Amino acid sequence: MNLPDPIKNFIHYFSKLPSIGPRQATRLAFHVISSGKDEIDGIIKSLKGLEDMSVCGKCFFVFLPQNKDDKLCEICLDKKRNPKIIAIVEKETDLISIEKTNKFNGNYFIIGNLQKNGVLGSEQKRRLEKLKDNIKKEMGVADEIIIATNPTTYGDFNAAILTKELSAKGGSLPDGRHGASGGKDYAKKITRLGRGIPTGGEIEFADEDTLGNALERRI
Amino acid sequence: MNLPDPIKNFIHYFSKLPSIGPRQATRLAFHVISSGKDEIDGIIKSLKGLEDMSVCGKCFFVFLPQNKDDKLCEICLDKKRNPKIIAIVEKETDLISIEKTNKFNGNYFIIGNLQKNGVLGSEQKRRLEKLKDNIKKEMGVADEIIIATNPTTYGDFNAAILTKELSAKGGSLPDGRHGASGGKDYAKKITRLGRGIPTGGEIEFADEDTLGNALERRI
Repeated sequence: MNLPDPIKNFIHYFSKLPSIGPRQATRLAFHVISSGKDEIDGIIKSLKGLEDMSVCGKCFFVFLPQNKDDKLCEICLDKKRNPKIIAIVEKETDLISIEKTNKFNGNYFIIGNLQKNGVLGSEQKRRLEKLKDNIKKEMGVADEIIIATNPTTYGDFNAAILTKELSAKGGSLPDGRHGASGGKDYAKKITRLGRGIPTGGEIEFADEDTLGNALERRI
Repeated sequence: MNLPDPIKNFIHYFSKLPSIGPRQATRLAFHVISSGKDEIDGIIKSLKGLEDMSVCGKCFFVFLPQNKDDKLCEICLDKKRNPKIIAIVEKETDLISIEKTNKFNGNYFIIGNLQKNGVLGSEQKRRLEKLKDNIKKEMGVADEIIIATNPTTYGDFNAAILTKELSAKGGSLPDGRHGASGGKDYAKKITRLGRGIPTGGEIEFADEDTLGNALERRI
């Protein structure tokens, strides 16, 4: 059957959103219609509100500018934080999770969704150049860069690429772009998040890799 | 950490939508912000479009009215369909699935999401009264009512409740509301969708209930 244009248009936009497929978008359309005009207006206003948000020119996290000229987020502006320790995360929600621990007092850098093919995307390359420029200009070399990608096969793979990019002692990227110009260190040390049994987890149910890591890195 | 108000507001509205939790709503907020103003405007317009949709006064399916006074959907207005055969479905997407088979030429009736506690919700009761009134006024008694709820425990349970409501030969609902006024049939027959092995399925992997049903209802 032929769905009415407004529903088709809604499905078009909503099925582009992450983890929403055409099927869920269709269900959402019917739900939204039945929820009534007031609720739709609320949703529209909440979307309009997002247009006020800006992306930080330094770490790429989002923030709500107080003045039109504000370019940096609260974390990057916070003088009590140490800008020489930088945690590279894939996405904003990873930053939020780390902030919630109250155990990190450095700055962040959001690299954006990493690909699974062993090559940095053009957006990731652009951001990484920005990070390198910032480090060079502001501190010469960072005290520590924590590459906080997921502890998965792809996360490890991408961490290796980023590590190579940021140490680049004559190294070269898979695409060879930085092979010749390399030879510069951007951080005194490059680390990753610790591996082991998650707190509250049970040894019996830990997979072999996790348990192996916990043994190797025992505290 | 404290999220900016526009993001909080977005999460408030989007985490109310079906199968979107606060976590996915947060991810969506960051995604939408980074997708830029044009994309946000497109999403907003697609939502505004849904405000043009109406709910059919007879079957509760949604439709796009051509004139302000239009009260019925295309299916209910279609003279080539048989209004004396009515398929009761839980939701709009169930109707769409049945329409896609091209094997049903009757009308529909959307009862809305059924509860799991063996009692009809107030909205469901209201819609059911509407269906009864329509049948009484338009045809006295329907030729057939197909109760097309899901073939699950709850679906079967709710089908039994609806069957009782629509036959109601001196019967009573769990809440007793129709016990006294009962005694009227709304359909010559009340049926459900067939049960068996799904086309393309394998006997080896069919669960016992499904295979048992396929044996009992063999064709």
